Amino acid sequence: MKMNFEDIVPVRFTEGKLLLLDQTRLPGEEVYVEMETKEDVWDAIYKLKVRGAPAIGVAAAYGLYISVRDLKADTAAEFAAEVREIADYLNSSRPTAVNLSWALKRMVRTMEEYLEGCEEAAAETGGSAEEERKIHWVKEVLRMEAGRIHEEDVAACRAMGEHGLSLLKPGMGILTHCNAGTIATAKYGTCLAPIYLGHERGYDFHMFADETRPLLQGARLTSWELQRAGIDVTLICDNMASIVMKNGWIDAVVVGCDRMAANGDGANKIGTSGVAILAKEYGIPFYMFVPTSTIDLSTATGDDIVIEQRKGEEIYKMWYEKDMAPAGVKTYNPAFDVTDHKYITAVVTEKGVVYPPYDVNLRKLFEEEV
Amino acid sequence: MKMNFEDIVPVRFTEGKLLLLDQTRLPGEEVYVEMETKEDVWDAIYKLKVRGAPAIGVAAAYGLYISVRDLKADTAAEFAAEVREIADYLNSSRPTAVNLSWALKRMVRTMEEYLEGCEEAAAETGGSAEEERKIHWVKEVLRMEAGRIHEEDVAACRAMGEHGLSLLKPGMGILTHCNAGTIATAKYGTCLAPIYLGHERGYDFHMFADETRPLLQGARLTSWELQRAGIDVTLICDNMASIVMKNGWIDAVVVGCDRMAANGDGANKIGTSGVAILAKEYGIPFYMFVPTSTIDLSTATGDDIVIEQRKGEEIYKMWYEKDMAPAGVKTYNPAFDVTDHKYITAVVTEKGVVYPPYDVNLRKLFEEEV
Repeated sequence: MKMNFEDIVPVRFTEGKLLLLDQTRLPGEEVYVEMETKEDVWDAIYKLKVRGAPAIGVAAAYGLYISVRDLKADTAAEFAAEVREIADYLNSSRPTAVNLSWALKRMVRTMEEYLEGCEEAAAETGGSAEEERKIHWVKEVLRMEAGRIHEEDVAACRAMGEHGLSLLKPGMGILTHCNAGTIATAKYGTCLAPIYLGHERGYDFHMFADETRPLLQGARLTSWELQRAGIDVTLICDNMASIVMKNGWIDAVVVGCDRMAANGDGANKIGTSGVAILAKEYGIPFYMFVPTSTIDLSTATGDDIVIEQRKGEEIYKMWYEKDMAPAGVKTYNPAFDVTDHKYITAVVTEKGVVYPPYDVNLRKLFEEEV
Repeated sequence: MKMNFEDIVPVRFTEGKLLLLDQTRLPGEEVYVEMETKEDVWDAIYKLKVRGAPAIGVAAAYGLYISVRDLKADTAAEFAAEVREIADYLNSSRPTAVNLSWALKRMVRTMEEYLEGCEEAAAETGGSAEEERKIHWVKEVLRMEAGRIHEEDVAACRAMGEHGLSLLKPGMGILTHCNAGTIATAKYGTCLAPIYLGHERGYDFHMFADETRPLLQGARLTSWELQRAGIDVTLICDNMASIVMKNGWIDAVVVGCDRMAANGDGANKIGTSGVAILAKEYGIPFYMFVPTSTIDLSTATGDDIVIEQRKGEEIYKMWYEKDMAPAGVKTYNPAFDVTDHKYITAVVTEKGVVYPPYDVNLRKLFEEEV
C-alpha cells in the first residue's frame, strides 16, 4: 500500500514498551505516549487516546500484560487472581465495544488454560520455586497472547480489505462515518482497509468523511489518514450526508462496528443509524465491516447492547474557544447508536461477506470454525 | 407569552436607528450593533449577524431605507435608480432565502408605485423643488413600507403559532433543526411560535434542539431562546436525531424554511432533508413552517433553488481553538438543502395549514388573496 502504515499504527509494542498514538491530539500533533501502569491504560481508553474497537482490544491485551508483568505473588493462583482483577478494572473503561472485553477475556482464559496445563503436567510437586517459575511463564504467555491478538487483527483487517474490495468498483464515491481506519485497528482499518487496497490497485475512489460530532473522528482522524495516504477525501458535516447522497455522489457507504448482536444489529459510532436510513432511502448499499471478534452471539439483538453515555460538555465545550450553548443547558450524548440489521446491505468479516438473514448467517461463521 | 420577547428581538428600528442583535456572539453576549451604511447591512447579512429568512427580510427592508435616506439626487428618477442599485447590492449578500429578495423587491415596487402616482397626479410641472419634495416623500414611503413588512411578519408568526399549535398536543417531544425561533423572524419565530404559544397555555413540551453544524444555530440560538423562555430543551448533535427518534422521544418535527418552491419542495438549513427522511422512517410527522412570503411560486421545484456554498473553514476552523482537520483538506459546505415535498407532512403558513398535493394547494393560498 502506498501509505506508510508503519508510521501511524495506533498501538506499538517494542522492546517491552507499550506506546499509544494519542489520537486526541490529531491532526495537529503525532505523539506516542508510553503506558506504564494499569491506570495509564484505563485512562487512555476512557479518554479515547486509543479508540476504535479493534485497536482498543489490542491495547487492552498489551495493557493487561504491562500491568501485571512486575507483579509479585506467593503462588500462581494468587497471581492469576490479581490478573483477573486488573482485567476487570481495564474492562470498566468503556462499555460498548465488545473487543475490549473479548481481548481481556481471551487473555485471562489463555492464562487459565496454561495454568491448568501446568497442574496436569506436574500435579506432584509445589514449593515456592515452582510457583515462581509458573508465574514467570504465565507472564510470558500473556505477552505472547497479546502479540497474537495484535497479529490476528492485522490479518483480519487485510482479509476484510480483500472481501470489502469485491463489493466496490473503481471511481466510486464512498461515504464513511467516524474512523474505522488504520488507527482504529492494529493496521489497515476495517472499513477503510478496502479503500487503501483499492488505492494501491488504482481504483481512484472519491471518499467523503462525515466529521462525526462531537468528537470529530471523521475530521481529525479519517480525513487525516486518507489524505496522508494520497486518497481523494472531502470532509463534510454529519448533516450533509443526505445532500451528498441526493447529489448522486455516493455509490456506497462503509462503516465499522463496535459490537454486532446475533441478529445483525450493529452498534457503531453515534449517527451511523441515521446514515444507514438515508442510504436505504436513496438506494445506496450500506456495508458494515465487522471482524468476528466484534460479533457477540451472546447478545441477541441491538436492544441488549449497553450504549455508553458521555458528558454533555463534549457537545458544547470541548474543542471550543468558548461555550457554544447557554449555561446549564440539558444535553443527551450517547457515544453510539444501533443500526438495525434491516438497513445493512452486507456485513464484511475477515472470513468473507455475509448477507441476510443475519441471524442464520452470522452464526455460520462460528460453526464453520469448529 | 411568558418569555420577554421585547428583550431579544433580532431587528430593532427606533428613533431612526437600525439595530441588529449580533447573533454570531450568542449565547455568550447579547450585543446590538447599529447599521449605518449599506455595507454594514450587507456585511451583517453575509456574516449571519442577522439570519433566518424572515428576519433577513425585515433587516434588508430597513437596511435599504437607512442606506438611502441621506442620498441626494437631482431628480426623483435618479434617486430611484440609486435605490434600485442599492437594493441589488443588498440582495447579493445571500442567495437562498427568498425573503431577502422578496422584501427588497417589495420596497422598490412600493417606491415605483408611489412615483407613478406622483406623475399621474402632477404631470404638469417639474423643477428642482418638486423633485426634492418627491425624493423626500419616497424616503418616507420606504420607511413606512419597511415598518409594514416588520409588522406583517410579527402578525404572520403569531398566526403560524396558532395554526401550528393545532397540530401539537400537550406533553409532546418535539425536535427542531437550526433556529426558526423568535430571533429568526421579527418576533415569535416560525416553527417555534407554536412552542411559545403552547408553553403559555401549559402544554409542557419537551424540545430537542439539533446543534446544527457548522454554525451551531441550534446550540447557540435555539437552546438559548427556549431556555430563556423557561421551556424544557435538550441539546443534541445532529447525528443523534435518529437515536432520539428511535428512543420514542419525538412526536413531531418542526422546522422553518428559507424558500419553498411551487411543488412544496422546501430549502432550509443544511441537514433538514436528512431529519425529514428519518422522521418518515420512524413514522413521525414532519411540519415545515413557511410564511407565504417564503413561498416562491416562480420557482417550480427544489432543483431550481440556488444553494449557497460557504467556506470550508466554517467546518474545521471556525469556533475552534485549533484546526480540527489536516491542512489543505477538501470540504463541501452547502448552507442549505432541499427537503423533497414527499417528506413534508404539512406546511404551516400564516393563512392556515396546507396538506398535499402541494402543487395545487400552495397556489390556492395566493389565489384566495385575489
